[in-house]
Amino acid sequence: MPYFDTASAAPLHPVARQALQASLDEGWADPARLYREGRRARLLLDAAREAAAEAVGCRADELVFTPSGTHAVHSGIAGVLAGRRRVGGHLVVSAVEHSSVLHSAAAHEARGGSVSEVPVDRSGAVSAAGYAGALTPATALACLQSANHEVGTVQPVAEVAEVCAAAGVPLLVDAAQSLAWGPVEGTWSALAASAHKWGGPPGVGLLAVRKGVRYSPQGPADERESGRSPGFVNLPAIVAAAASLRAVRAEADTEAARLRVLVDRIRRRVVRLVPDVEVVGDADRRLPHLVTFSCLYVDGEALLHELDRAGFSVSSGSSCTSSTLTPSHVLRAMGVLSEGNVRVSLPPGTPAEEVNAFLEVLPGAVAGVRERLGVSEPPAVAAAAPEAESLELDALGLRCPQPVIELARAIGRVPVGGTVTVLSDDEVARLDIPAWCAMRGHDYLGESPRPAGTAYTVRRRS
Amino acid sequence: MPYFDTASAAPLHPVARQALQASLDEGWADPARLYREGRRARLLLDAAREAAAEAVGCRADELVFTPSGTHAVHSGIAGVLAGRRRVGGHLVVSAVEHSSVLHSAAAHEARGGSVSEVPVDRSGAVSAAGYAGALTPATALACLQSANHEVGTVQPVAEVAEVCAAAGVPLLVDAAQSLAWGPVEGTWSALAASAHKWGGPPGVGLLAVRKGVRYSPQGPADERESGRSPGFVNLPAIVAAAASLRAVRAEADTEAARLRVLVDRIRRRVVRLVPDVEVVGDADRRLPHLVTFSCLYVDGEALLHELDRAGFSVSSGSSCTSSTLTPSHVLRAMGVLSEGNVRVSLPPGTPAEEVNAFLEVLPGAVAGVRERLGVSEPPAVAAAAPEAESLELDALGLRCPQPVIELARAIGRVPVGGTVTVLSDDEVARLDIPAWCAMRGHDYLGESPRPAGTAYTVRRRS
Repeated sequence: MPYFDTASAAPLHPVARQALQASLDEGWADPARLYREGRRARLLLDAAREAAAEAVGCRADELVFTPSGTHAVHSGIAGVLAGRRRVGGHLVVSAVEHSSVLHSAAAHEARGGSVSEVPVDRSGAVSAAGYAGALTPATALACLQSANHEVGTVQPVAEVAEVCAAAGVPLLVDAAQSLAWGPVEGTWSALAASAHKWGGPPGVGLLAVRKGVRYSPQGPADERESGRSPGFVNLPAIVAAAASLRAVRAEADTEAARLRVLVDRIRRRVVRLVPDVEVVGDADRRLPHLVTFSCLYVDGEALLHELDRAGFSVSSGSSCTSSTLTPSHVLRAMGVLSEGNVRVSLPPGTPAEEVNAFLEVLPGAVAGVRERLGVSEPPAVAAAAPEAESLELDALGLRCPQPVIELARAIGRVPVGGTVTVLSDDEVARLDIPAWCAMRGHDYLGESPRPAGTAYTVRRRS
Repeated sequence: MPYFDTASAAPLHPVARQALQASLDEGWADPARLYREGRRARLLLDAAREAAAEAVGCRADELVFTPSGTHAVHSGIAGVLAGRRRVGGHLVVSAVEHSSVLHSAAAHEARGGSVSEVPVDRSGAVSAAGYAGALTPATALACLQSANHEVGTVQPVAEVAEVCAAAGVPLLVDAAQSLAWGPVEGTWSALAASAHKWGGPPGVGLLAVRKGVRYSPQGPADERESGRSPGFVNLPAIVAAAASLRAVRAEADTEAARLRVLVDRIRRRVVRLVPDVEVVGDADRRLPHLVTFSCLYVDGEALLHELDRAGFSVSSGSSCTSSTLTPSHVLRAMGVLSEGNVRVSLPPGTPAEEVNAFLEVLPGAVAGVRERLGVSEPPAVAAAAPEAESLELDALGLRCPQPVIELARAIGRVPVGGTVTVLSDDEVARLDIPAWCAMRGHDYLGESPRPAGTAYTVRRRS
């Protein structure tokens, strides 16, 4: 049963499992104790820290283990912000960071700090210039992911780090998605990551803070992990995490090359096999194992369900799969289509046959969802004579992807040069109607508020 | 090799190991995902929560899993304090709480809150009257451990809970040391515990907050665990923790009765086998598996080392085993001897033979340490005629147990009714000189500050 959501979580790497078994026997005691079981635990902890630091590219005494990648991000951001409180209360993040970073930023704002979001281009990438423009003399910290978790775009970390270094601002890198593939380049100041993204067990994150970066741990004091991560050290999982990181790194180049071929195949073929698909994220500067695309006129949750029934586990940034009814903030920041969104992230070792099988199943799965939504293929653009120069559609109460389907059905009812206005109270329309226009070659004229909902206006171009 | 420090950490219970293995296969995926691996993980998580809630005695939707007992305590205290901010900023804790509670209290004070410490008697127990006296109309929260982690004294939680309920103040119970033995009695409002204390894996704590208790999670938002514990859920460890709790509970009554006999044997025999020993903690209202005693004229670290060489792993609250040079805050609050302190906490299944072997080894280990410190047995109380009505000893720069040894050597040099004043800059003298007086039947007259150090004065009584 193919599992294609390794960007969420991966099964335990065989090496991690072995290390976990061994350290459950050898490493259950408190490493702070002086008796033999404690000394043995201390040796294991020291060795795991050395191994992790080597993989990260830092000194062992710069690295602490945390209970998760989220804890590493929360602690790291709070610690540097507090350490540099005297400089100012300004925090810079990209618009496409992981929610742990954005939630830290929101908490910082709630405490009276200020936050700037650096925008991304349509591929999901920030620019060094974007960061340069956001830094101020009061900037205490800048944060940037090494690669995006939803679309796989690799960020220009080294360039941004240079810009930050020139301004004297520390850069914290969320390396959760990329650390399995290699160390983060550039002169970053702090780095956070999560073991269960590289085949380690859950329950382990890591936080590296370079010597010289002012850091003040927040929350109640605790002497463990240099005072930077409270609680009893989760040693067996830490040992397993370090072993796993070393193991995936040993295979990383070979595996990256192999998966890159499979992902390229998906990127190329999905647009040929499925009508009205947009592949999102940078085509070249990207993670080797991850590809994301969105399908017009498709309900993301229904598509996931269809693929699950066919035996494929994938993820989605569509609003329709979440309880909040808002699409992924990443897709929104990129300004790309969000409906029918599918993220495929291949675990190491994925055989080509599984990818081929996915490409065989996908077109039928998409067609099935569209059929149930009443969308023929391509959507019925009436050949009849236009009804009027401009039309207004009431799509109030309809949820993604219905407003776009209504728009697609109606566009043929106005002449080339005529306009269709869609009245919608679905948050996703703001993203998907312009995206549809770009895919279909129509002009998006903008939005205006209405007493109920928002009016989105489109001019027919062909 | 007998390991007698289960109050610090215990090896994984066989049932926990089995559950961990199985859930590494079945429960590695993100339980928030809709595909089969996610649904399977969700089922495991729900079942673990039900099992843990049943053992705790709360509803499943009142309980969340945290990365450690320390995280449960930190989050629980911060959440209730914030939820009841409008009531006031006053926090009540006992003087003998675990450091995670006391550090939370210190952090609360640093943010402008106020804290009252309820004292304990010589057995380490608080009284309901002590809590009643500490509560004010501005008290947002009271905290009390179910049993003490260093001396095993069981606290009157149900009585204190009643006092708190009458005052409308929620009570948070740190149940880390007792949850393996049974649910916490009384109408507590919140409860924290740690799985690796009951044979579960490290990396799992639990926090229960009764419906109706105002609670506001602190730190960056995170949707997982009802918004009360951020980070990817450590599911395999959670499943193992819940399985282990159920398993140890099934054996708890039988095992408690068996270990109580062994601990009684230690309590009775240690005072006969080793001269100048004080067994501390309540003799009756106590944890079944834990006993603590202190040995006059003994360096705690040296004794631990001696016992470790003989194959016994035990713990100590002596200052000489820590880097801070201060004795355990628990022993200090109780006003009992701290030098040569040993905590024995027996894991379930400890055979009687191991306890007997310990009692055989202990007298020689203590005697060996005393011999190296130059203390003959009993300490040389000179039979010679007194030198003077009062003597002053300069013990500046000497560390525990040396100041007390100097005092014991000198007391014979003054007549009955005469005084010896010890000048010491060792923090421990404040605790151990009065404790020595109580053990030897001399009068402790008090302390007074000196330009260097403190002067402690003792009147010879026999």
